[in-house]
Amino acid sequence: MNDLLAKEKIKKFLFEDIGTEDLTVSSIFSENTQGSGEFIAKSDGIICGLKIPAMVYELLKDADFTPLVVEGQQVYKGDIIGRAKGKIQTLLTGERVALNLMQRMSGIATKTAKAIAKLDDPTIQVCDTRKTMPYLRLFDKYAVKVGGGKNHRFGLYDGIVLKDNHLSYAGSLKEAVKKVRRIQGHMIKIEVEVETKEQLLEAVKANVDIIMFDNRTPAEIKEWRKIVPKSILLEASGGITIKTIHQFRGCGVDFISMGELTHSVDAFDLSFLDPLNKKDFRRKQNA
Amino acid sequence: MNDLLAKEKIKKFLFEDIGTEDLTVSSIFSENTQGSGEFIAKSDGIICGLKIPAMVYELLKDADFTPLVVEGQQVYKGDIIGRAKGKIQTLLTGERVALNLMQRMSGIATKTAKAIAKLDDPTIQVCDTRKTMPYLRLFDKYAVKVGGGKNHRFGLYDGIVLKDNHLSYAGSLKEAVKKVRRIQGHMIKIEVEVETKEQLLEAVKANVDIIMFDNRTPAEIKEWRKIVPKSILLEASGGITIKTIHQFRGCGVDFISMGELTHSVDAFDLSFLDPLNKKDFRRKQNA
Amino acid sequence: MNDLLAKEKIKKFLFEDIGTEDLTVSSIFSENTQGSGEFIAKSDGIICGLKIPAMVYELLKDADFTPLVVEGQQVYKGDIIGRAKGKIQTLLTGERVALNLMQRMSGIATKTAKAIAKLDDPTIQVCDTRKTMPYLRLFDKYAVKVGGGKNHRFGLYDGIVLKDNHLSYAGSLKEAVKKVRRIQGHMIKIEVEVETKEQLLEAVKANVDIIMFDNRTPAEIKEWRKIVPKSILLEASGGITIKTIHQFRGCGVDFISMGELTHSVDAFDLSFLDPLNKKDFRRKQNA
Amino acid sequence: MNDLLAKEKIKKFLFEDIGTEDLTVSSIFSENTQGSGEFIAKSDGIICGLKIPAMVYELLKDADFTPLVVEGQQVYKGDIIGRAKGKIQTLLTGERVALNLMQRMSGIATKTAKAIAKLDDPTIQVCDTRKTMPYLRLFDKYAVKVGGGKNHRFGLYDGIVLKDNHLSYAGSLKEAVKKVRRIQGHMIKIEVEVETKEQLLEAVKANVDIIMFDNRTPAEIKEWRKIVPKSILLEASGGITIKTIHQFRGCGVDFISMGELTHSVDAFDLSFLDPLNKKDFRRKQNA
Amino acid sequence: MNDLLAKEKIKKFLFEDIGTEDLTVSSIFSENTQGSGEFIAKSDGIICGLKIPAMVYELLKDADFTPLVVEGQQVYKGDIIGRAKGKIQTLLTGERVALNLMQRMSGIATKTAKAIAKLDDPTIQVCDTRKTMPYLRLFDKYAVKVGGGKNHRFGLYDGIVLKDNHLSYAGSLKEAVKKVRRIQGHMIKIEVEVETKEQLLEAVKANVDIIMFDNRTPAEIKEWRKIVPKSILLEASGGITIKTIHQFRGCGVDFISMGELTHSVDAFDLSFLDPLNKKDFRRKQNA
Amino acid sequence: MNDLLAKEKIKKFLFEDIGTEDLTVSSIFSENTQGSGEFIAKSDGIICGLKIPAMVYELLKDADFTPLVVEGQQVYKGDIIGRAKGKIQTLLTGERVALNLMQRMSGIATKTAKAIAKLDDPTIQVCDTRKTMPYLRLFDKYAVKVGGGKNHRFGLYDGIVLKDNHLSYAGSLKEAVKKVRRIQGHMIKIEVEVETKEQLLEAVKANVDIIMFDNRTPAEIKEWRKIVPKSILLEASGGITIKTIHQFRGCGVDFISMGELTHSVDAFDLSFLDPLNKKDFRRKQNA
Repeated sequence: MNDLLAKEKIKKFLFEDIGTEDLTVSSIFSENTQGSGEFIAKSDGIICGLKIPAMVYELLKDADFTPLVVEGQQVYKGDIIGRAKGKIQTLLTGERVALNLMQRMSGIATKTAKAIAKLDDPTIQVCDTRKTMPYLRLFDKYAVKVGGGKNHRFGLYDGIVLKDNHLSYAGSLKEAVKKVRRIQGHMIKIEVEVETKEQLLEAVKANVDIIMFDNRTPAEIKEWRKIVPKSILLEASGGITIKTIHQFRGCGVDFISMGELTHSVDAFDLSFLDPLNKKDFRRKQNA
Repeated sequence: MNDLLAKEKIKKFLFEDIGTEDLTVSSIFSENTQGSGEFIAKSDGIICGLKIPAMVYELLKDADFTPLVVEGQQVYKGDIIGRAKGKIQTLLTGERVALNLMQRMSGIATKTAKAIAKLDDPTIQVCDTRKTMPYLRLFDKYAVKVGGGKNHRFGLYDGIVLKDNHLSYAGSLKEAVKKVRRIQGHMIKIEVEVETKEQLLEAVKANVDIIMFDNRTPAEIKEWRKIVPKSILLEASGGITIKTIHQFRGCGVDFISMGELTHSVDAFDLSFLDPLNKKDFRRKQNA
Repeated sequence: MNDLLAKEKIKKFLFEDIGTEDLTVSSIFSENTQGSGEFIAKSDGIICGLKIPAMVYELLKDADFTPLVVEGQQVYKGDIIGRAKGKIQTLLTGERVALNLMQRMSGIATKTAKAIAKLDDPTIQVCDTRKTMPYLRLFDKYAVKVGGGKNHRFGLYDGIVLKDNHLSYAGSLKEAVKKVRRIQGHMIKIEVEVETKEQLLEAVKANVDIIMFDNRTPAEIKEWRKIVPKSILLEASGGITIKTIHQFRGCGVDFISMGELTHSVDAFDLSFLDPLNKKDFRRKQNA
Repeated sequence: MNDLLAKEKIKKFLFEDIGTEDLTVSSIFSENTQGSGEFIAKSDGIICGLKIPAMVYELLKDADFTPLVVEGQQVYKGDIIGRAKGKIQTLLTGERVALNLMQRMSGIATKTAKAIAKLDDPTIQVCDTRKTMPYLRLFDKYAVKVGGGKNHRFGLYDGIVLKDNHLSYAGSLKEAVKKVRRIQGHMIKIEVEVETKEQLLEAVKANVDIIMFDNRTPAEIKEWRKIVPKSILLEASGGITIKTIHQFRGCGVDFISMGELTHSVDAFDLSFLDPLNKKDFRRKQNA
Repeated sequence: MNDLLAKEKIKKFLFEDIGTEDLTVSSIFSENTQGSGEFIAKSDGIICGLKIPAMVYELLKDADFTPLVVEGQQVYKGDIIGRAKGKIQTLLTGERVALNLMQRMSGIATKTAKAIAKLDDPTIQVCDTRKTMPYLRLFDKYAVKVGGGKNHRFGLYDGIVLKDNHLSYAGSLKEAVKKVRRIQGHMIKIEVEVETKEQLLEAVKANVDIIMFDNRTPAEIKEWRKIVPKSILLEASGGITIKTIHQFRGCGVDFISMGELTHSVDAFDLSFLDPLNKKDFRRKQNA
Repeated sequence: MNDLLAKEKIKKFLFEDIGTEDLTVSSIFSENTQGSGEFIAKSDGIICGLKIPAMVYELLKDADFTPLVVEGQQVYKGDIIGRAKGKIQTLLTGERVALNLMQRMSGIATKTAKAIAKLDDPTIQVCDTRKTMPYLRLFDKYAVKVGGGKNHRFGLYDGIVLKDNHLSYAGSLKEAVKKVRRIQGHMIKIEVEVETKEQLLEAVKANVDIIMFDNRTPAEIKEWRKIVPKSILLEASGGITIKTIHQFRGCGVDFISMGELTHSVDAFDLSFLDPLNKKDFRRKQNA
């Protein structure tokens, strides 16, 4: 992750939440009041985003964060993720932005890890898509990696994926690939979505870098892959979810891409608590 | 929604996805190629964000969007949401950003409507929190309204909520409210979180605008509310989800705020399809 | 005041003034030359903006500022407000921006304090309006608070004020308030401007949060306020100036809002002087 | 005025005022409601900023403005400055920003015109300083020109002014001018502040472009100017106000610069009124 | 090229050149004066950037540009490239920015075309590097394509190139490639710089996507390439210039990358001329 | 050079090159790995931009740069320009941006110094034009000064140059100068391009600040200059290059402006090398 870019974005997130002033904090606390707190896991999963609190505090000044776990570690309900201390205004004003972002990132990492475990096939890698939240792709894709997944292309600029719409306008797959090769450089990979056996044969003939089986059943994939030479990577895609991914175990692709990893995320529950004031959390644990 | 601000943000979203160039589209299509397409619902729910495609096209130029449903309408799998036509480069390059944002917004609106239906108590309004996605609060909070919910404060700048951490540092609730009133203006409302009956009595005495019952059971709330005069609004909050909200039916608060509405969103499934090329969608419908 | 936002704005102010280079300073001084100076009051009033020089120097690097008075203090002609020392390039290049901003802020604080003194009625609070200078509202509204005043809403986003134009289009005040309540959340207060007794009665009936007497005489206000229940706050507004505010003493409103506090500001005279070179200032004192 | 830059700044002003949404307008009006209104002078003076409403409407969309007077014209209380019509949301949401800026600009233009009239010496031009409001210099300096004045340098980047602080560090005026000439290009003018006759003689000898008499009396200036050759321009500066400027009539300088023109501005009173709803204004006229 | 991004950058270029105002143009011309002009080639080469004038005029408003040649066309001294007409202020204020950018882009396209012609080997493609001018990479890389070349990676984010420094720290080439593959996704190509035969053998064994012969002679390349299987692309790099590129004819690589294409560019000479006022240009032609 | 502005620009340059992540560096190195390196000259010339590496490292954090030569010094192939040490990620990720900018700046400084040496006339100063690279003018013009040249105006905002196009529309030179003087302030210089003796006489009569002989031969200039009084500065311009500049020796102008200094720059060759790994460079030296 480009930290300089991450901080630039976090600055904007802070402006969104704080606006002209944190009316509550500025009314209650003086500039000099010091405090501390703990980031605590309230469910089980993969922690992600341990750099975020420090970035928030660097921007708001005069507080720091010490992580007590490592990025990507499995944590459990009640675990202390890290300790923050410093100017109480900074701790409380920055709390929500830090949590919102870490909860999303840890939610994505956790979901990714679950998908990989459910798939349970070390020959297939799980990867993301461009179905990330706008402006948060940097964080979303990083979290997929922390969860054990791989990144598909980051945007429209760093990889070519020829889809149905492109192909129908270009005349033929062959023609489309030819056009791309005439124009684009050698560092860019070309992937083609195929939905029929004819398209598959064309794609093999065009010697593209990756073939994506779009909305194909594991059975279809198993049969079709036999046609494809080893030098071409294979990807399965299209509505594969954490509920269905195990069906693709052993289907023989190199990658499965899942939009769900980033378009439908359950926040991983995290709290920031004053160490003397953990009632809420303890009460819930007892429940 | 401030459209000027929305467009400014969407411009940034487009830069994130397109970067230096849409390598695929620029290889395949000439600047002059025209096309059209339909936005189609692939599940049932509340549609939200019908302005987004037009904003995307205004920025990328030379395409337009005509909605065929109205904002906030219940739509069903297979419904055509709207038609787009114009420069094919614009249609295809802008597709993902428009969908990513509309899918989130419709997902939030749908979840909000479901929560309201599940609660089934017209005397209680469902509202959001600050647990939105960073940089997307404008869209997240708008979607809650489209789904029938209400907005809680937008940020730290437009409302005061005194929480445990604030109160423990301020000495007492009475002292904290006094400090706030001495400093802040008359257009700002003051809400206080209470967890014990003592705090509740203090809050009533301080005559705050809203009292939030934090992590209280419906039974506790029903009893406690009797102490509170009509002029003070009541809010229930703290881990209330779409699974538990019905338990609060008839509990007597004015508002229930749910972080889940925006921190854990399932994307509402939408597709952009070339009208001559709807195989994928039809196949799924038949399945 | 959100310091992170303030610094972001001050960076833009510095770019406006310095542009590509401070031609004078870069011609005369080496990067290593050190210096010092004093910020000195050249008239009497309330000082405001003591954080500004440090923010300027943090951006330009290698100089610091030590205030010798406290924010909001009454200062007198000749008082040393604070001392700056460090890289002479930073001190001289940043001087004008720091002074321009502090002079405006202190001018606003001073005017606010004068208005309060002239009104001489502790039951009425003096507050600002949205008639601030574009891009400077953060500083303008902060200065009103430092001068002892209160902030009205910060913008169109954090409070509702229904004015003539709104009401005439909405059909009736009752209808307008109903529309607002249907759409907006419970953290937002509703204020209504009234110019006639009929409107006043309607506003009372609609149970709005604040009623603003727009361009009413103190006599009218005194009579009309009897109709309004205690739970509704009252505001007087409309062309009330520092020359006329005493006429509203005892009129019974809770707030008087004055556009003049921020739309017509006399800069509070401040100088930055090399301690060895105070001729100019001393001469003036002798005069 | 660079219109592209002006619009960029006005966009920021609109974001400052509107934030996430104009809560009032969006509650009351539909997107389709049309309306109109008039900008009306409520006092006498020089109108300035007639381009501003159109810029505001271009950004907010779907409304336009037709001026009925010309930039820099003398207008009188009650004069209609221009007519606006279009989407009522745009008219009302943009009103305050447009007025705040035009009132400042017209206030500056009016003050400048008054200073020139009071001076009543066509051989002396009145000009501004860098004591403008941060981020508004573009508009402030433009308004001075509209009021009949001239612009001094725009910032630290487009002209050299050697002041006391610079000279004391540089060793001597001669040395300072030499340094500047060695480094800076031929398109940049050099001005020197002088406070003593010795400095004046040095400045003449150094053949600078402009000599500024800083805080000198008209009598001193009259005497000192005899020493200066015609090829060097003369400027009087230092605390000259609209109350004292007439004392400098005939003193023989080419320019008088006044910080007061932009650091202490009285807003020129303007209103935006629905044509069917001018009660407020008429009542005031009758009073 | 992402036009939306290009326009955003051009807006910044215009702010850099125009600043607060085009003092000359605003003094001489009224807002209404219309004019026209021609962009004329003053030397021979490949024209590039024909979209730029229209983008400049769209930002400055009220002028348009009609190209009379096509992007990438060979043009000759005296050729009219295109005609502009509209508001004279826009034509003259925007002239320099449009020319500066087009002259660079056409210079790059021309240099690229020359390198390809000099190489005269259709089996080898000429490509660029990251040695572009900061902030101009979008335009620089586009121009290389217009000149017939190919783009190497756009930045550090869309391709992996393992160089000496990386390898020496990573332990071994094998280890480095393994690390990369463990972390990065399948859409990213891996290139390795080799300087010795040992490295070459390692790279072949690691089955990287591209091998770059860094600073190798054509003779070395010819020999070494025999070791490399067809599936690995080959690139020659390192100080190859337009003077030496012909030595690499037939050396058997797929690509030659040249920093010189963008780090040392001769502006292609273009003028913008009032059609009635072409003296300057004609005189030069006669000379 | 305004360092605050320079850093703001360099931040954008880093975003352009790094994008979402330096894929290579983040794969190979841990956050803690330390390293060092040397910036080494690979040709002879004037070094410029010694502040750039430190600015890059300040942004990317945790590395620093110690220059071993001084800004503007003549350096030779093989000279160590400076040493960098710190976090290896920062050193390698920031390398290209730092080099790209320094190579351009040193290339400009070197070309300027060569032009001055070739001209070999201390009575004439060599200066730049507005033919700089967009967004890089700050660095380009600074480099001209470091190379011993002078800066012409920075943009359209800080000086007036009346050219053919302006004059033909304004009616006459006299009329144009009159218009300018009526509108613009006394800190702005007026330059006029003349191509004929009639224009020259007009310009002299109008007493402009500078007269530019546009595309005139040295012989013409020598004759024409006799007509011009000493108080008016003279500039020669129009296609004067490093190949022809010596012809203007002794022609009697004060300035020669050369577009070529910044529109056609050869990068000055610099490398960043790991001290243990200088093979590449040594090999070249031996060759």
